[in-house]
Amino acid sequence: MPRTSNNGSRGATMEIEPKGKNGPNARPRSAGKLGKMVYYFGKSRSEGDVTLKALLGGKGANLADMTSIGLPVPPGFTITTDTCAAYYKAGQRLPHGLMNEVHKNIALLEKETGKKFGAIDSPLLVSVRSGAAVSMPGMMDTILNLGLTDASVEGLARVTGNRRFAFDSYRRLINMFGDVVSGVDHHLFEAAFDRIKAKYKAVQDTEVPEAGMVELCEEYKHVFHRAVGEVFPQNPFKQLELAIEAVFKSWNGDRAVAYRRIANVTGLNGTAVNIQTMVYGNMGDDSGTGVAFTRNPATGENSFYGEYLVNAQGEDVVAGIRTPLPVDQMPKWNKKVYQQLLDIKNKLEKHYRDMQDIEFTIERGKLYMLQTRTGKRNGVAAVKIACDMAREKLIDEKAAILRIPAGDLTQLLLPSFDPTAKKLATVLCEGIPASPGAAVGRLAFTAEEATQRAKAGEKVILVRKETSPEDVEGMHWAAGILTSTGGRTSHAAVVACGWGKSCVVGAGDLQIDTEKGQAKVSGKVLTRTDTISIDGSTGEVIAGSLATVEPKLSSDFVTIMRWSDKHRRLGIRTNADTPGDAQRGREFGAEGIGLCRTEHMFFEGERIRFMRQMILAETTEAREKALAKLLPFQRDDFIGIFKAMKGCPVTIRLIDPPLHEFVPHDEKSQKEMAQSMGVTLDKVRQLVGKLHEANPMLGHRGCRLAVTYPEILRMQARAIVEATIDCLRSNIKAMPEIMIPLVGTRKELAYLRGLVEETITLVKTEEDYKPRLDIKIGTMIEVPRAAVTADEIAEHADFFSFGTNDLTQMTFGYSRDDIATFLPDYMERELLPADPFQTLDQEGVGQLVRMGVDKGRQAKSDLKIGICGEHGGDPRSVHFCHRVGMDYVSCSPFRVPIARLAAAQAALMEK
Amino acid sequence: MPRTSNNGSRGATMEIEPKGKNGPNARPRSAGKLGKMVYYFGKSRSEGDVTLKALLGGKGANLADMTSIGLPVPPGFTITTDTCAAYYKAGQRLPHGLMNEVHKNIALLEKETGKKFGAIDSPLLVSVRSGAAVSMPGMMDTILNLGLTDASVEGLARVTGNRRFAFDSYRRLINMFGDVVSGVDHHLFEAAFDRIKAKYKAVQDTEVPEAGMVELCEEYKHVFHRAVGEVFPQNPFKQLELAIEAVFKSWNGDRAVAYRRIANVTGLNGTAVNIQTMVYGNMGDDSGTGVAFTRNPATGENSFYGEYLVNAQGEDVVAGIRTPLPVDQMPKWNKKVYQQLLDIKNKLEKHYRDMQDIEFTIERGKLYMLQTRTGKRNGVAAVKIACDMAREKLIDEKAAILRIPAGDLTQLLLPSFDPTAKKLATVLCEGIPASPGAAVGRLAFTAEEATQRAKAGEKVILVRKETSPEDVEGMHWAAGILTSTGGRTSHAAVVACGWGKSCVVGAGDLQIDTEKGQAKVSGKVLTRTDTISIDGSTGEVIAGSLATVEPKLSSDFVTIMRWSDKHRRLGIRTNADTPGDAQRGREFGAEGIGLCRTEHMFFEGERIRFMRQMILAETTEAREKALAKLLPFQRDDFIGIFKAMKGCPVTIRLIDPPLHEFVPHDEKSQKEMAQSMGVTLDKVRQLVGKLHEANPMLGHRGCRLAVTYPEILRMQARAIVEATIDCLRSNIKAMPEIMIPLVGTRKELAYLRGLVEETITLVKTEEDYKPRLDIKIGTMIEVPRAAVTADEIAEHADFFSFGTNDLTQMTFGYSRDDIATFLPDYMERELLPADPFQTLDQEGVGQLVRMGVDKGRQAKSDLKIGICGEHGGDPRSVHFCHRVGMDYVSCSPFRVPIARLAAAQAALMEK
Repeated sequence: MPRTSNNGSRGATMEIEPKGKNGPNARPRSAGKLGKMVYYFGKSRSEGDVTLKALLGGKGANLADMTSIGLPVPPGFTITTDTCAAYYKAGQRLPHGLMNEVHKNIALLEKETGKKFGAIDSPLLVSVRSGAAVSMPGMMDTILNLGLTDASVEGLARVTGNRRFAFDSYRRLINMFGDVVSGVDHHLFEAAFDRIKAKYKAVQDTEVPEAGMVELCEEYKHVFHRAVGEVFPQNPFKQLELAIEAVFKSWNGDRAVAYRRIANVTGLNGTAVNIQTMVYGNMGDDSGTGVAFTRNPATGENSFYGEYLVNAQGEDVVAGIRTPLPVDQMPKWNKKVYQQLLDIKNKLEKHYRDMQDIEFTIERGKLYMLQTRTGKRNGVAAVKIACDMAREKLIDEKAAILRIPAGDLTQLLLPSFDPTAKKLATVLCEGIPASPGAAVGRLAFTAEEATQRAKAGEKVILVRKETSPEDVEGMHWAAGILTSTGGRTSHAAVVACGWGKSCVVGAGDLQIDTEKGQAKVSGKVLTRTDTISIDGSTGEVIAGSLATVEPKLSSDFVTIMRWSDKHRRLGIRTNADTPGDAQRGREFGAEGIGLCRTEHMFFEGERIRFMRQMILAETTEAREKALAKLLPFQRDDFIGIFKAMKGCPVTIRLIDPPLHEFVPHDEKSQKEMAQSMGVTLDKVRQLVGKLHEANPMLGHRGCRLAVTYPEILRMQARAIVEATIDCLRSNIKAMPEIMIPLVGTRKELAYLRGLVEETITLVKTEEDYKPRLDIKIGTMIEVPRAAVTADEIAEHADFFSFGTNDLTQMTFGYSRDDIATFLPDYMERELLPADPFQTLDQEGVGQLVRMGVDKGRQAKSDLKIGICGEHGGDPRSVHFCHRVGMDYVSCSPFRVPIARLAAAQAALMEK
Repeated sequence: MPRTSNNGSRGATMEIEPKGKNGPNARPRSAGKLGKMVYYFGKSRSEGDVTLKALLGGKGANLADMTSIGLPVPPGFTITTDTCAAYYKAGQRLPHGLMNEVHKNIALLEKETGKKFGAIDSPLLVSVRSGAAVSMPGMMDTILNLGLTDASVEGLARVTGNRRFAFDSYRRLINMFGDVVSGVDHHLFEAAFDRIKAKYKAVQDTEVPEAGMVELCEEYKHVFHRAVGEVFPQNPFKQLELAIEAVFKSWNGDRAVAYRRIANVTGLNGTAVNIQTMVYGNMGDDSGTGVAFTRNPATGENSFYGEYLVNAQGEDVVAGIRTPLPVDQMPKWNKKVYQQLLDIKNKLEKHYRDMQDIEFTIERGKLYMLQTRTGKRNGVAAVKIACDMAREKLIDEKAAILRIPAGDLTQLLLPSFDPTAKKLATVLCEGIPASPGAAVGRLAFTAEEATQRAKAGEKVILVRKETSPEDVEGMHWAAGILTSTGGRTSHAAVVACGWGKSCVVGAGDLQIDTEKGQAKVSGKVLTRTDTISIDGSTGEVIAGSLATVEPKLSSDFVTIMRWSDKHRRLGIRTNADTPGDAQRGREFGAEGIGLCRTEHMFFEGERIRFMRQMILAETTEAREKALAKLLPFQRDDFIGIFKAMKGCPVTIRLIDPPLHEFVPHDEKSQKEMAQSMGVTLDKVRQLVGKLHEANPMLGHRGCRLAVTYPEILRMQARAIVEATIDCLRSNIKAMPEIMIPLVGTRKELAYLRGLVEETITLVKTEEDYKPRLDIKIGTMIEVPRAAVTADEIAEHADFFSFGTNDLTQMTFGYSRDDIATFLPDYMERELLPADPFQTLDQEGVGQLVRMGVDKGRQAKSDLKIGICGEHGGDPRSVHFCHRVGMDYVSCSPFRVPIARLAAAQAALMEK
């Protein structure tokens, strides 16, 4: 069941590491002399094997591999990725000698199959497909039935005894070849087909009789001739040569490049080309085709999961004209083949020790395997499969840990729709639940629209009849995907499932009018301004925005977390500003708080009033008076957090943002402030004006506030110490660590540390608290200068916490608030491999982090070092933190499990 | 002529290097055991010498030195700076054994002078003065006549035969001791004096008769007793001990600390204490006192320059009651002493091989030298003296170069008042020309006011009756200084002259009312809102703001520049955006343009209109259309600059600021723009809103604009190439270097370099220009990431230019526009040694610069490297650039001479 346009769409990317420079599959091929260009696979010999993935592509290597272990694979051969690179190196010319090699291998094929390429008697037909080292959904073009000509089509008719089939195959070749190789507009062929259908009064393609098919081939050849200016090639080797070149060309097609950008695939040198003997699932009711996963890729359940169609070719499934049957119904049709498939499934899982995604075809009762590869799965399935396979002794615990993409754990922690709310909701229609998750958004009708609106900050659901590779970017940006056609193995389902993105497919009741921007369902008309909720676990499409609830964690998840904790070296903390967040972080396994921001505590209710009094104050005394009113609130906040953290360390960062963030900027609020403060509006305006800064990010904030207004620092330190003593006296083990933000120089920290220490001593005396108070005092390393002078700064610090958000801003000179103005252009032109605020820039910012760690430890060998920027929850960045020797990472509560798993993977990969 | 409150006020700071860690005088004294605490100087022995400056302070070392070379110095001894450090280390307690040593040395003094400390018969009296390794104007307190008691005052009366003198000395001691040691309010003593003067109907102090003086001493002792709660100490050793401690304490007095901050003096460990036998210039008409410079410190002229007063003590000069006489009138009074002084002057210059600042006293016809030190001088004098001394063979050419503080060259390049304008001006009055320069500003009546208003951006002239050490900060901030009293050696004159700040003193017609904020002169009343112009070269005080003219450069200046060029290794370029600036830079000796900013070219006249059209454009085509209109302007600008630079290299930086800088932000201008562009006001507002950024410094600017709008880069590159070809065809050697700003990654530069190269090729083809065009393409290193990945970036760069302004902003996380909100607090608390935007932060930013240089050269050994931040004209930063191995520095035209000299000094100091 070769599929025309979505080959590759279900390839697996289970690598823990990025599929870039460091990816296991991406070792750059030698730039030296071009070696053996063609590898044969068949009964006589199988030249490739699974270790040659970089050279043969994933598909080619697996075809060779499957052949070697005795699976029924139609014979063929693979042209190497190096040959593709050589093609580009030579200015898009096929390397010298390639076609000679191809001729030799075709001869081998002819010998093995007893057929002859391009011959009238028993013609050998082949498929031509791309296949890179890393699977790239739907990006590469495929040609089937290659070798058919005006002469050999008659041979095929004779051999198969099915002339309609032969001409149907021929018209498919002309169509695909015209489309893929010669760039003929697909619609020209469709129009011709429509004319024939009209002539023969056929509604479905299948209703066109033999004579119509013969006529259609003539029409198609005319279409081809008119569009290309040349006749459709009647030399099968010419067909093959052009097809090979077309595959090479597709490597740098826009879609392929876009996918590689989004998926961050770099370091590959090209695609391989797989040329394989055709087998047909459409030779009658004893034939068929199918795709399957060895386990359920959405749930991880260990059950054979897939679909098949009787008397059909792969493209028929994609076309969505006939509904495929679940694979477990196959015994009713052909028990023997089903049993054979089950055996192969088990053999493959044993061989690859991982869940496989397979394609197969039954030609006149005989089963052929066309492809196997590691199956994509969502996070839920990844966890379950890893655990199950470990239990089944297929893999060990370490392999299980390494097998789960840490970032995909998010999917297990995603909320689902609130069942109570759902009861009251209007279910518009139901489709096939293709990828779990609760998504809410407004309707977007094209991929471009979805991309654009999502970039602008809107949440959108991409609503399409079906999706195609052209839609990948829009699917990426959409909150969820809804299609009116297609099944579990349709393009939308497979891509969304791989990404863990909520997706419902085949919601047939939905009538979509893309041009009008409307979808009709249950008598309702939905437009761009309507919001819907889709449930990827049930297939429900619901009107409006539905409330969600927190997920329950599976026992497999718990197992993976337990295993991870056993193997990781890094400590895991959470960023939490409230007792609630602290509690959640602990529940997810955080061993402490790595970043407790205190400024959020100044906004609620009355507090902001006192904060503003403080800011309005013109003397130290007046400021101290206002601060005294804030003190009890702050103290109570800390007590709450200490209680929630039950003796785990809590790193409290002193106030960081510039004061202008605490004053209102619109006139209405300024008036309110003036009234509530008892000052004139002018006074408020003056204040706001005074606080305005050209570049607040580089302005009067962080520890600079404490230098100017030491009384703020004193109040905060007092609140922390008073809260600590209060807790300790109530037998609550409080472990505060005071963190001074934005430090750039040794003297700055020395001075402020002095103020904190004075306050600690003062409060202890006032409270008459005698026992030793172990309150560590440290700093954020977030200003480049702090990183390069970390040795000096370490002299006054008990700990460092890398604030990689600000460090990234200052190291790149990128304002996070403004980066949207140029980041898209940078991504577009591949000038940045990723958004540096999501994944730590190891080459640049990382050098400063490494320098900070090394210099800090050099000055103070027991310096505790962590990270509290958002990178602390990004798997690749966690690996980096492990490698540079940090003590812990800290991230938002929901990312704690990801960090735990990533930390374990980093430790295991080190060994 | 010991002066009470301005001792140290004329000390020299001729060091090239900062008086900080690296300063020659500042080697930190060993932290080990306290060694010999007291060093004697006198006829019998002289234990110190000039090499012990760090230990004995400048004054102590020079007193010992002068004694050694046989000059008539009153004997005494010096307590070391280490002793001061030990005093602080011990929690402000005099080190054990110190007073024993003091006793021993007093015994030596008694032996040498034949007098006895505290005795009734022939009492030994001493002065106690501070003296650190680096001279600090007026910061340390002094006590004279120490050793006088109720008993010994009578002895002094007997010995001198002048009872009035004895009691006058005693009341001075009580006053100074009370003030300095015991903190008695000076006004209490003044009030007492006024009562006595009233009683004796005296107007001047000198009119108080002997009886009044005796009575005054009684009054003063009561004042002391009442204020301190103890009687004035009658034990001379007790007086001495308390005085020593007071000197130590003054080391950390607010004023001393403030001076050290402003003058950036760090790394010293304390002050020495000099205890010296008193001599008296007020013992009759055969006595006198004076201060002098061995050459004119304002012009450099080789003539004895100073003042003396007959029958007076130093403080009488400072009090401004009597007008001192120029020293060249001394022969009329005492030819022998004058000749002796001239001999000593010559001897001192030969000995120290530098201009000296001396203090002397004639006691009953006998000359005593009280002090010598390297004389402060302004830039004009420094250049002349260095050249003269080289001609006189006192020093060699290298020493001459090293002797001139490079930064002071500014003074030679400062404009003076336009003589034509002056003819029409209203001269309000004339004072003594104390320090050359033309200063214009509004009147400020106190130092605090001057500081505050100047910080707020106003130009002010500090107008005072006289200045005192408390005024130092205000003097620093003022554009010029004007006093109504005092002479050439008054506090104001000496401090201003050392700084090269315009100063007029002794403008007696000026009646200043500080409280009212008024100055009356020539019947006019001047207030804070009036502007005056003062001419420090003529002493004129002029109403209003006078126009200025460029200076003419002296032949000595030319000589120094010639010598500098011979010895420097660094190339010197200038920052210039216009042909005029380019021309000026070349005249000052620049060998090329290191930074030609192109954005300034977009503001003039019509250009801004086209620029705004470009910004308003919504398509690439529309942008290109607007850019095409800008092209001819830009091309002509470059032609002009190439012509002015006559074949010297011109580094052209492509557009750098964010586009919002080119659109108006006030409604009126927005309306105008809308009208002139033919769009709605709303459209303009939308545009401005769209261009707004939270942190423009870190936003869409620099090469990020070129990534988004490659057409801007193409237009600029085209203008450069067309201008180059145009020039070359007219036989004008154009040497453009294209500099891409704000690069942070290798790929960014590779991409943009590619666009530039394409444009060069394209224009060459269009113009049919065949010869090789050597246009270098390089980048600014101004983003921290560029510095840490300089090896990668160098692969695509022909040169680097460090943009240390932005690099400082991002490395510190300091917005230059906003730093004023916290920098003062940082300076106040000594958390920063200097404004990092003025002097390169070598420890932090410098590490990145060094890394950038090293990594860049590592990747490309012939990479040309320079600096074009404002630090390129700062002497200390130039030294740093030399040390890290840059090829050139670039600075504003006026700073080019400074850079040339500093570069030579750096090269000479390296050897």
